[in-house]
Amino acid sequence: MSDAENTGPAVSPLAPKAGFPKMPEIGGVRFAATSAGVKYRNRDDVMLAEIAPGASVAGVFTRSATRAAPVLDCEAKLAGLDPSDAGFAILVNSGNANAFTGGAGESTVQAVCAEVARVMDVPEGHVFTASTGVIGEPLPPEKITGVVAGLREALAPDGAEAAARAIMTTDTFAKGATATVEIDGTMVSIAGFAKGSGMIAPDMATMLSYIFTDAAIDQPVLQAMLSDQTKRTFNAITVDSDTSTSDTVMVVATGAADHAPIASLETPTARAFGEALEAVMKDLALQIVRDGEGATKLVEIRATGAANAADAEKVARAIANSPLVKTAIAGEDPNWGRVVMAVGKSGAAADRDLLSIRFGDILVAERGWVAPSYSEEAGASYMKGDELLIAVHLGLGDGAATVWTCDLTHGYITINADYRS
Amino acid sequence: MSDAENTGPAVSPLAPKAGFPKMPEIGGVRFAATSAGVKYRNRDDVMLAEIAPGASVAGVFTRSATRAAPVLDCEAKLAGLDPSDAGFAILVNSGNANAFTGGAGESTVQAVCAEVARVMDVPEGHVFTASTGVIGEPLPPEKITGVVAGLREALAPDGAEAAARAIMTTDTFAKGATATVEIDGTMVSIAGFAKGSGMIAPDMATMLSYIFTDAAIDQPVLQAMLSDQTKRTFNAITVDSDTSTSDTVMVVATGAADHAPIASLETPTARAFGEALEAVMKDLALQIVRDGEGATKLVEIRATGAANAADAEKVARAIANSPLVKTAIAGEDPNWGRVVMAVGKSGAAADRDLLSIRFGDILVAERGWVAPSYSEEAGASYMKGDELLIAVHLGLGDGAATVWTCDLTHGYITINADYRS
Repeated sequence: MSDAENTGPAVSPLAPKAGFPKMPEIGGVRFAATSAGVKYRNRDDVMLAEIAPGASVAGVFTRSATRAAPVLDCEAKLAGLDPSDAGFAILVNSGNANAFTGGAGESTVQAVCAEVARVMDVPEGHVFTASTGVIGEPLPPEKITGVVAGLREALAPDGAEAAARAIMTTDTFAKGATATVEIDGTMVSIAGFAKGSGMIAPDMATMLSYIFTDAAIDQPVLQAMLSDQTKRTFNAITVDSDTSTSDTVMVVATGAADHAPIASLETPTARAFGEALEAVMKDLALQIVRDGEGATKLVEIRATGAANAADAEKVARAIANSPLVKTAIAGEDPNWGRVVMAVGKSGAAADRDLLSIRFGDILVAERGWVAPSYSEEAGASYMKGDELLIAVHLGLGDGAATVWTCDLTHGYITINADYRS
Repeated sequence: MSDAENTGPAVSPLAPKAGFPKMPEIGGVRFAATSAGVKYRNRDDVMLAEIAPGASVAGVFTRSATRAAPVLDCEAKLAGLDPSDAGFAILVNSGNANAFTGGAGESTVQAVCAEVARVMDVPEGHVFTASTGVIGEPLPPEKITGVVAGLREALAPDGAEAAARAIMTTDTFAKGATATVEIDGTMVSIAGFAKGSGMIAPDMATMLSYIFTDAAIDQPVLQAMLSDQTKRTFNAITVDSDTSTSDTVMVVATGAADHAPIASLETPTARAFGEALEAVMKDLALQIVRDGEGATKLVEIRATGAANAADAEKVARAIANSPLVKTAIAGEDPNWGRVVMAVGKSGAAADRDLLSIRFGDILVAERGWVAPSYSEEAGASYMKGDELLIAVHLGLGDGAATVWTCDLTHGYITINADYRS
C-alpha cells in the first residue's frame, strides 16, 4: 500500500501561524507517547492517557457500516459504562487502522485492552483504544502490548503535545486547541488535540480527537453536549466527501476543578462550559480542514433561507463536495455557475429566481441571473485570498447550515494517486 | 470564464479505436449543422434536425432544481404534446448553456423556437431546443435565429455526424452509435449521437443525446422505454458526481419502416426493439465516460447481493464517486481498503464479515479480511489495464446495480482548475 506520509508540502500553507498552542495541564490527566514501530520509523506512534477515578467520558464515532474493531469496542463500552469509581485509560496507535481485519482485529483490541487494564490497574471496560493508518493489514498486538509498561513510567501532566504528535498520519502539523471558562468562580480549562488530513488520508483511516477538561460534569450531560456540538463542528467539515472507518471524538471531564458538578444542560453554567467546549471542537475541526490533503484554501460554505435545516445542509454539502466547485476554487476562478449547478443537484427545494449567491461581501448572482453590480474582476480578486466564504441564500425559509471545506488541487491527486509502495 | 476546450489531450486515450461509426440514414430525418459564432471560432456550433410528420418523440431531462430554460421548455412541450400530424424540429447550440439567465433565457428560447417553427413550418409546440456551454451568460437569440433559414437549405439525410460534431464542447471525440433490429421481417435502424465529458464540463453544462429510428412505435410506449432504459444507461454513469443543468436525452421514432406499429411494451417486438435501443444508449453513455475529463481508465462498478436494489445503487455510486477510490485507480493502486471505506459510508446495509470484493476475476477480500489467495502483485498487475471491473458482493440479498465511471487524474484538475480566461 502507499506510503504517502512523506509527500506533499512539509507543512500546509493554511497551518495556524502560531504553531501548536501551549496546552494547560488538566488535573487528573497525564500523557505519554513512545515509538512502537507499528509502521513509521524514527517517530512516536503510540500515545497513552491516564485518567483519574471519577471522570466523565463521552464519545462520538463514525457511522460507517465498516467501522473498525476499536470503534466497535469503544461504542460497546460507552453504552454499558459501569458506575465504578475506577480510573480510565485511552491508548491510540498510528500507522495501522486495524480496520477490515476480521476476527484478528477484535483479538488485537482485546489483547491491547487487557494489557492496558493490567498495567494501569483499571477495569477493561474503562480502556478505550483507537487505531489509525492502513486498512486491511493485521495489527500485531505484541507491538502495542510491549510498550504499555514503559508508557506508564513516562506519564506526565504536560505530555499532551507529544500525544498529539504520536497520533498523526499524513497530517502536516499537530493540531491542538484550548479554552478556559469560569464556573462558579473557578477557572476551568479545556485542552484538546486532533489528527486528520483527508476524511480518510491515503490508505489511512481517520479523524481522531481527544479533549480533556478539569470541569465536573455528569456523563449523560457531557455526552449530550458532545453529540449536539459534533454536528456543528467535526461533522460540518469535509475534505473529500469520504468517511473514515475509524473517526472518533472523545471528551474526558475529570472533575478536578473545584465547582459544583454540572448536572443539567439547561443551566447558565452548562451553557458557558458548552460554548467553550464547542469553540475548542470547532478550532480543531477547522485545523483538520486546514491540513486537508493538498489544500491551499479554507472555504466556509454558508447556506441560508432554505425551506428547512435539512435542505440547507444538503445545499451546503453539495457545494462543499462538488469537484467542479473545489477545482474552480483551486484555480481562483469565481465560477459561480458551478455553485448554481451544485445547488441544483443537491436535491433541496430551490427556486432559481429567488436564489442569491455571495463571495464574501460581493453579491454575485440574484433573481436567476448575475447581479448587475457584479464584476468578474472583483470576483477574481476575492478568490485570491486563502480563506473564502461562499454564501447561498435560497429565499424560501429559515433553514441554515454551515460547512467548511478546502479546494481540490494537484496536491490531492499527487498524495492519493501518484505514490505507490 | 474559462476557455478549457483547447486543453488536455487531443483525443481521450479511451476513445473508440474505430472512430465515429458509419451512421445509417433514418427515413424521415434530415440534419444540418453550421457555425453561428456563439462562442467557438472555426467550427460548427448549431445543429438542426428535421423530423417528418407522424413521428413519436420521447425525452428525459436533468432533475436539477436549476434546470436551464431550454430544458423547462422541452419538458412542458412533451407533457402537453398535441396529437397533430405536423412534423418536428430539434435545434441545439453549443458554447452557451442559456442556464441561470433569468427571464432573458426564456425569451431566447421563445425567439428561437418561433423562428424554427416559421422556417420549418411546424407548430412551436413541436420545436425542441437545447443549449450547452457557459452557465450564466446571456445567449443572444439573433445569433441562432440568423442561421435557421440557411440550416433548412442544408438539410441532408446523411448529416448525423456533422450534427454530432456541432454539439461538442470539451468533448475530445464525437460520439455515435447504431443498431439494427428486425421487426416483423423489416430491418429497422437506430442511429444516435451524444456529447458530454464531465457531468458538467468546465463552465459548460451538459450531457446531450439524440437518438433516431425509423421504427413505428407509439409515443407513450417509446417514452416508457426511454425512461426505464435511462436508469441503466445515461443515469448509470458518473464522471465527477456533478449534475448538469441541461442534461437531455431525446428519442425520435419516425415510423418510416414498414411494420405494424409497436403499441405495447409487453410484446416480443417491443422487447427486441427495446434491447437494440438500450444497446445504443449504453454505447453512447460509455463513450461519455470514455471522454471523461482527464480519464485514463474506464471502470465498471458492480454491486450485487445487496439487501435491495436501492442499497445496491448506493454502494455502486459511493464507490464510483469516491475521490479516494478514483485517485487509487489513477495511480494503478489495488487499494481495496478504499473500496471497503466507500461501502461503509454509502448508507446501505452492509456486514463486514459477509462482504466480498473482486478486481476483475481476482478475489481480493472476503469474510471481513483480505482473501488468503490474494496477492498485491496480482492486484497491481490487473490495475494496469485501461478497462477495469470492481465488483462488490454484499451477501445480504438480491439487490444489484452497475455504474460506470472513470479515474480522477491530474488531467481533471488541469482542465477544471488551471486554465482561467
